[in-house]
Amino acid sequence: MDLKSLIRDIPDFPRPGILFRDITTLLRDPDGLRYTIDFLAQKCIELEIQADCIVGMESRGFIFGAPLAYKLGSGFIPVRKRGKLPAAVHSIDYELEYGTDSLEVHQDALSPGRKVLIVDDLLATGGTASATAKLVQKTGCELVGFGFIIELGDLQGRKYLPDIPIISLVEY
Amino acid sequence: MDLKSLIRDIPDFPRPGILFRDITTLLRDPDGLRYTIDFLAQKCIELEIQADCIVGMESRGFIFGAPLAYKLGSGFIPVRKRGKLPAAVHSIDYELEYGTDSLEVHQDALSPGRKVLIVDDLLATGGTASATAKLVQKTGCELVGFGFIIELGDLQGRKYLPDIPIISLVEY
Repeated sequence: MDLKSLIRDIPDFPRPGILFRDITTLLRDPDGLRYTIDFLAQKCIELEIQADCIVGMESRGFIFGAPLAYKLGSGFIPVRKRGKLPAAVHSIDYELEYGTDSLEVHQDALSPGRKVLIVDDLLATGGTASATAKLVQKTGCELVGFGFIIELGDLQGRKYLPDIPIISLVEY
Repeated sequence: MDLKSLIRDIPDFPRPGILFRDITTLLRDPDGLRYTIDFLAQKCIELEIQADCIVGMESRGFIFGAPLAYKLGSGFIPVRKRGKLPAAVHSIDYELEYGTDSLEVHQDALSPGRKVLIVDDLLATGGTASATAKLVQKTGCELVGFGFIIELGDLQGRKYLPDIPIISLVEY
């Protein structure tokens, strides 16, 4: 299946000069959604990534991470923006183009030694994925891979990620 | 499976006096996640809810709606907070305890006549679900059901929803 044909380009979003890759057109297509999750799962198997749990980032990471966890029989752990998770959290600040933001994960969500796959819709500069990796590592877990639907190759986000398998289904 | 045993109570979150029902403990349990999605799907079949697409609200609705769409072979349509969706949207304002908020859906996400199931983690006062129902109806779709993991019965949120099947897996 040609996933690119299901991803819509939106010029000048969220601001002028940015070409936004919109995955909502893929999600609304039943075959597209199914193929995407099955393809991610198949790549995990091919690369021998055996994760006990899938970590997904708020909020598009939830849309792909949760079905993948369901498909693989793993648990799902949400990483959220500051103040959204109700119990004690680990927190990490990371830099945005303007200012900083933080991500949080429940302290008791991931016990040491668990094998974790991080899933998000997009690998761009790698800022969010790299921060999430550090956050997961604070829990003593073993990071075993990353899974993305889209990779923006020009931005070279992979360079900023740990040396573990990185799956991306579509590259621009 | 006793889903309640996997849902954690957090007192005084997000503010004093509120007992928060935390579903992250359910999500991180592989059997709990699988059972929850399969149970939702089974209830849809029992109630003869045949949805072409699942609408899930940002952001906990994404975590349950997307795997359910995957399981049922439906498309998934995200309903998001203002300004997050990149293409032309329908928008609806709704009242919160203090002030108002808005929800948006892509105008072209749902074509008239499509059968829609709305999924969220929690039915409390029904404010978000009711607003989402109105938003979906703006697109000319047919709303065929609601699916929630948790229903807070005392708050009587069901009273504010259209007269269609409402699934909830756990009631407090």
